[in-house]
Amino acid sequence: MHRKTRGQFRSAPAVVVRNRKELSLAYTPGIAAVSSYLAKKPHEARNYTMKGRTIAVVSDGSAVLGLGNVGPYAALPVMEGKTTLFKAFAGVDAVPLVLSTQDADEIVETVVRIAPAFGGINLEDIAAPKCFDIERKLIERLDIPVMHDDQHGTAIVVLAGLVNALKVVGKTLARIRIVIAGAGAAGAATAHMLRAAGARDIIVLDRKGIIGRKRKDLSPHKKELARFTNPSGLSGGLREALEGADVVIGVSGPGLLRAADIRRMAEGAIVFALANPVPEIMPEEARRGGAAVIATGRSDYPNQLNNSLAFPGVFRGALDHRVRRITQAMKVCVAKNLAALVKRPTAEKILPDMFDKRIVPAVARAMKG
Amino acid sequence: MHRKTRGQFRSAPAVVVRNRKELSLAYTPGIAAVSSYLAKKPHEARNYTMKGRTIAVVSDGSAVLGLGNVGPYAALPVMEGKTTLFKAFAGVDAVPLVLSTQDADEIVETVVRIAPAFGGINLEDIAAPKCFDIERKLIERLDIPVMHDDQHGTAIVVLAGLVNALKVVGKTLARIRIVIAGAGAAGAATAHMLRAAGARDIIVLDRKGIIGRKRKDLSPHKKELARFTNPSGLSGGLREALEGADVVIGVSGPGLLRAADIRRMAEGAIVFALANPVPEIMPEEARRGGAAVIATGRSDYPNQLNNSLAFPGVFRGALDHRVRRITQAMKVCVAKNLAALVKRPTAEKILPDMFDKRIVPAVARAMKG
Repeated sequence: MHRKTRGQFRSAPAVVVRNRKELSLAYTPGIAAVSSYLAKKPHEARNYTMKGRTIAVVSDGSAVLGLGNVGPYAALPVMEGKTTLFKAFAGVDAVPLVLSTQDADEIVETVVRIAPAFGGINLEDIAAPKCFDIERKLIERLDIPVMHDDQHGTAIVVLAGLVNALKVVGKTLARIRIVIAGAGAAGAATAHMLRAAGARDIIVLDRKGIIGRKRKDLSPHKKELARFTNPSGLSGGLREALEGADVVIGVSGPGLLRAADIRRMAEGAIVFALANPVPEIMPEEARRGGAAVIATGRSDYPNQLNNSLAFPGVFRGALDHRVRRITQAMKVCVAKNLAALVKRPTAEKILPDMFDKRIVPAVARAMKG
Repeated sequence: MHRKTRGQFRSAPAVVVRNRKELSLAYTPGIAAVSSYLAKKPHEARNYTMKGRTIAVVSDGSAVLGLGNVGPYAALPVMEGKTTLFKAFAGVDAVPLVLSTQDADEIVETVVRIAPAFGGINLEDIAAPKCFDIERKLIERLDIPVMHDDQHGTAIVVLAGLVNALKVVGKTLARIRIVIAGAGAAGAATAHMLRAAGARDIIVLDRKGIIGRKRKDLSPHKKELARFTNPSGLSGGLREALEGADVVIGVSGPGLLRAADIRRMAEGAIVFALANPVPEIMPEEARRGGAAVIATGRSDYPNQLNNSLAFPGVFRGALDHRVRRITQAMKVCVAKNLAALVKRPTAEKILPDMFDKRIVPAVARAMKG
């Protein structure tokens, strides 16, 4: 299919040019009136150009899907697919951009330089830990919203799912222990988001085990995690972390967990196994371990946690409300609005269907700030 | 109109996403198959992604229309208009990009870094003399075609018009004197192009007068012009240059020429006055001076010389024939194919109508190399 269509992205002019009169309106000499006006009032670009309705989807190809660092050409089909979803779900015009550099500072400079045409920047498939710095610097330097979807798209959908999963098992966020297996882009952002939403006992693990203040080998972003997670000062690995935990969120890789691990958890265990396409634990095995609510990234099981629930509406709302910065409070509100779309959550239905037309308006509404 | 539509650019996915199955083809997990393939064979990107059919239209806003250095926001409507024409005339998908830098090296670096998604780069409205270096460096560093339209689009259309104007007055390119008033982007490129097409006696003027080897104040690109123009070693200004000249091409600014200047020229004088919207001399006044064939950039007079005759087909052909570099020979061939579309040129009709459907195929054919 992708060979036949040569990718998915297309440009499509909003105006018709069939004769000289239409040409003179769309291009010269008519366009000079708009240009002269914007020369004096550049901040009006949102009202007279694509800037008011278009975002860029930018990747350096350093962490593409489950494929890893495969470079810009291999990243391009994914970015094109993403622009298709932006338009199909939320009517957001989006341009795929893949970069021939993987240097963090060069990525920042490049995005700053191409920013004038765009009303938002969706960073995508950029590897941790450089993704944290890149996003932070771009947020500081630009007056348009910037979001690394692998971080915050995932975190939003996890929180939304968790809000409803907790209703199913009758627990509350402030009183549970949450284990996050994986301290990459998605794991770190999820920890920050759950904390912002009111979670108090979060334990994050990287490949070497539980992250805590005593660890001497932590990168800056993991030190940051150590500051607000693991309040009881646990050390050790997954086994120690899972003992009596209420929730485990896998954002690492296939096959990390077994039924025996789930059995260590508290009654009414919630298991989100988000590695894709092969999750940390298959739903059948999680159930054997006694899990009460199970979600994955897969479409062939109930409870698919998919970023597509969040990112189209996030940028729809950011454009509509002229948001300059996407705040943690907005993202928490997005998650709650998403969760609220399921009136009576069950173990098999914690999130709305991806094609539910209410999603984008509900998400976009949360971006008012 | 532009306020109502918020600009002209739109993205439009080539694939439909109405259900999970379509979603899994357009995005994850289906798209992983394409990405895995391109990870191994990045050169296949032209077959499987937008790269095979999409160009970028890039400006730093340093020389926008007649407005000058008005910056990226004021340039954006023009770039959007240009992408409208690319699609309307030649089915070329195009993305407007305006840059927040005007530094030549930074422009080069930025375009190199965003190049992977594109099959060609149309530079636009970038000021001389930096436009020459920027274009040259990009051509050296990229394996996709790069063309600064203000230079070569103009030069192509001037040559096309001149070929037919010479038929009207019964002269040949190799035996005439051509005066080019203006040594900026368009003037320099036109001189190079006319020389490549066989012109031998070309005189170029900048604000200080005739460019020649004796001038001590020449920038590198003007020194280059001095090497192959002004073979009789003239010095002085417009008056001296026009004495007995066969053709004058104005690519400078409004009101430079008067009827008295045209009277100095040879019988059957050809006057191309391309400053827009106010030409170097109005057609009525050129006629009073005895001009035999007159062309301007305006649509309200006969013989409109407009880049739109060239650029859509140039990039259509470059994409179709997978051209890596646009050569001078290709551009000369484009001009000749354009000229050949007018079977019997007259003083009032030296070029085809812009909406003539034969133009794009004729131009694209010339790009085979």
